Amino acid sequence: MYVRLLTHTPDPERTVAAAARLCYSATGAARLYEDLSVEQVDKLLAHLIESGYESPTEHVTFTFAIEGVSRSLSHQLVRHRIASYSQQSQRYVREQSFDYIIPPSVAAVPALKARFHTTMATIQNAYNELLKAVPAEDARYVLPNACETKLVATFNCRSLYNFFRLRCCRRAQWEIRALACAMREEVRRVAPRLFALAGPSCETEGICYEGRFSCGRAPLASHSRGQGREE
Amino acid sequence: MYVRLLTHTPDPERTVAAAARLCYSATGAARLYEDLSVEQVDKLLAHLIESGYESPTEHVTFTFAIEGVSRSLSHQLVRHRIASYSQQSQRYVREQSFDYIIPPSVAAVPALKARFHTTMATIQNAYNELLKAVPAEDARYVLPNACETKLVATFNCRSLYNFFRLRCCRRAQWEIRALACAMREEVRRVAPRLFALAGPSCETEGICYEGRFSCGRAPLASHSRGQGREE
Amino acid sequence: MYVRLLTHTPDPERTVAAAARLCYSATGAARLYEDLSVEQVDKLLAHLIESGYESPTEHVTFTFAIEGVSRSLSHQLVRHRIASYSQQSQRYVREQSFDYIIPPSVAAVPALKARFHTTMATIQNAYNELLKAVPAEDARYVLPNACETKLVATFNCRSLYNFFRLRCCRRAQWEIRALACAMREEVRRVAPRLFALAGPSCETEGICYEGRFSCGRAPLASHSRGQGREE
Amino acid sequence: MYVRLLTHTPDPERTVAAAARLCYSATGAARLYEDLSVEQVDKLLAHLIESGYESPTEHVTFTFAIEGVSRSLSHQLVRHRIASYSQQSQRYVREQSFDYIIPPSVAAVPALKARFHTTMATIQNAYNELLKAVPAEDARYVLPNACETKLVATFNCRSLYNFFRLRCCRRAQWEIRALACAMREEVRRVAPRLFALAGPSCETEGICYEGRFSCGRAPLASHSRGQGREE
Repeated sequence: MYVRLLTHTPDPERTVAAAARLCYSATGAARLYEDLSVEQVDKLLAHLIESGYESPTEHVTFTFAIEGVSRSLSHQLVRHRIASYSQQSQRYVREQSFDYIIPPSVAAVPALKARFHTTMATIQNAYNELLKAVPAEDARYVLPNACETKLVATFNCRSLYNFFRLRCCRRAQWEIRALACAMREEVRRVAPRLFALAGPSCETEGICYEGRFSCGRAPLASHSRGQGREE
Repeated sequence: MYVRLLTHTPDPERTVAAAARLCYSATGAARLYEDLSVEQVDKLLAHLIESGYESPTEHVTFTFAIEGVSRSLSHQLVRHRIASYSQQSQRYVREQSFDYIIPPSVAAVPALKARFHTTMATIQNAYNELLKAVPAEDARYVLPNACETKLVATFNCRSLYNFFRLRCCRRAQWEIRALACAMREEVRRVAPRLFALAGPSCETEGICYEGRFSCGRAPLASHSRGQGREE
Repeated sequence: MYVRLLTHTPDPERTVAAAARLCYSATGAARLYEDLSVEQVDKLLAHLIESGYESPTEHVTFTFAIEGVSRSLSHQLVRHRIASYSQQSQRYVREQSFDYIIPPSVAAVPALKARFHTTMATIQNAYNELLKAVPAEDARYVLPNACETKLVATFNCRSLYNFFRLRCCRRAQWEIRALACAMREEVRRVAPRLFALAGPSCETEGICYEGRFSCGRAPLASHSRGQGREE
Repeated sequence: MYVRLLTHTPDPERTVAAAARLCYSATGAARLYEDLSVEQVDKLLAHLIESGYESPTEHVTFTFAIEGVSRSLSHQLVRHRIASYSQQSQRYVREQSFDYIIPPSVAAVPALKARFHTTMATIQNAYNELLKAVPAEDARYVLPNACETKLVATFNCRSLYNFFRLRCCRRAQWEIRALACAMREEVRRVAPRLFALAGPSCETEGICYEGRFSCGRAPLASHSRGQGREE
């Protein structure tokens, strides 16, 4: 898996702080953006995060280059609708020698791993055969979920908060969890205060809302609400 | 492919007409909803469609049961973000005897069709083997794009207009085009005036904006703009 | 204030239950929708709400006729972006005798109330005068926030959950809180189980996350996160 | 009116070009982003715009500081839901000496202008009086639509295309049209090719779809569809 922050709104923490401050100030955002001291930015962000006042964080966006992930993952990923995606198309790009992702549980057992590789080879041959006679968009019907794909994905900070809360949780499927954690590493490098607390509630609150599905990492909330899930 | 309109906002055309009328009226929507005559509803809808005034059509939603479609299709479908989806999960539902979709171009050639079936059988065997040792969410990595899936999808009317414009076009991939046309049949039964003109511009305007990608069904617009596409 | 549920997805609880069940079942949604017993629907909804699994609730929508509210309120309301709105337009509808909303804190003090009415009358006169010479869309610049407006608003159930959590809270402004509570009354009549627990966390969990802004109705969470707010 | 591009995705045209190219390429986005020549970026953008392939333009966002606009305008503006807003709050910021916007049609006639100023002064006095006795969130009910407000607004490029198409049109209300044109000036400075053609169809296609509402600037399309409108 290859995850890299391709680009992002410059000075994201200053941008969020200026937008947040505007709501309670007679001063315009352009001046706030220029005049806020580093200490004021810090203090505003601390207040924002403490009070759960998330809407100003929408003003900054983060664009990721993602490679070496499966089509299983991408199908889950694009269910997050408050984001923008561009994905390598199996309708137009021919997979004459496709890469694929092996789940760790399969890779760990030599016999299963061998069976997995053999199956991929069989699929590759069938695909190549079909490709001689039909369009790529039809030949791809034999391609596996494991098939590697590449994407560009853009999220704003608030949508990332939601993504990290759901997908950095141990209940999330392993591959999308690895992606979410890698994306979080990337954004923490450029906006450490904005993302210091981003993640599942066991990390941010020391409490778990997953009820009987909990992994046990943190004590259960007395009233267990769950956090909402997709797919 | 099985497509059925599961449920929808009752009396959708009256609902849209009342909402549209409200914007230009001193009367409230509850009274308009009750008092508009059938002729007034007709006239309001005709005006809406002629003038491209689409926002009141968002108030009505249509929920579809969709079965017998491939995971290729569902991956494309869920890219339409102004909609809601529930999909049979390959993490939780075991595919010990999965159904699959064969592209017509493959089914038309006996040798290709045979190769396709053989490949599916190989995959099925590998999947069943993996399932003995690893969770379903990992075994599914060998499953093909062709694998059958089931969904519930809800769109509002305005989002359907966009969906039909893009996906009933002959440039769309065959399977999602068949789905879009079947969905359009369903909604035309319950809201014939709202959807009379829904579809690609060759049907609605007698003109094509696809430029050099045009299928030739309608003359090209002098300035060819395309219609926007996803995936 | 007049709030009425104009229309909604028929049998909303069955619709949500069928969509939720589909994700974990080999059976299609059309059959589930028909075959689920009332007891099964109940049980599925109870599980959904307990586990915070909200996405299936998006399949059902509720359309409200709203009258007798101020433009202050409507400006706040339309900040909720996962919803559809049609609003009486001040560009097209002339307010030659506009109604207006008086805040209870003003109405409670006779002198303030008199001052309020006088100011409204002055504005009405100026508006009528301007209307003789300029278009309604320009004359409206003198109209007050208090000016009455009418809307049609459509939300799906999941978006209503968010709306009720934020706007039924005592920290919300009084007018939008009254609207939210009235809307909740309406939907509880037709989908009592779906909305039994909808509201701020003091009602749903017996805990408050508002920290130092708390009204004191429920004990504070040890880690106070706030709930996110708009405007 | 004061409109300034506060910040934006760096190198927006390269970002869009890399995302667009990824869909049809075996190469990942990080390498495309680094390796595309200026000529390749130009060519990719030209192709995008010609073919109406808008989805890759979502990856770049533009954040505006907006001041000196009316609450009439902001109420219209926030109806554009694919965007993020932070707005100076009349609940928290006291308007003890509020600025206001005078429509040009009113300002052009001395008697109307005087009447407008007098009305504003009456409102200011009433507001200040109320403020002594009630919270700002209630006193604001007397404030006019003309009242000045400040915002931060973030749009992605695709959403700006829609905004400029609707709001740079002469049918749009004068104030939001002035805002849209000022925003377009700003983004054209930093992404001239992306926004070269952004605007109403009379500018981009030399044709008008507004039917009987047309301003006459460009010939009518044979089949007049309108372009969709909000509020």
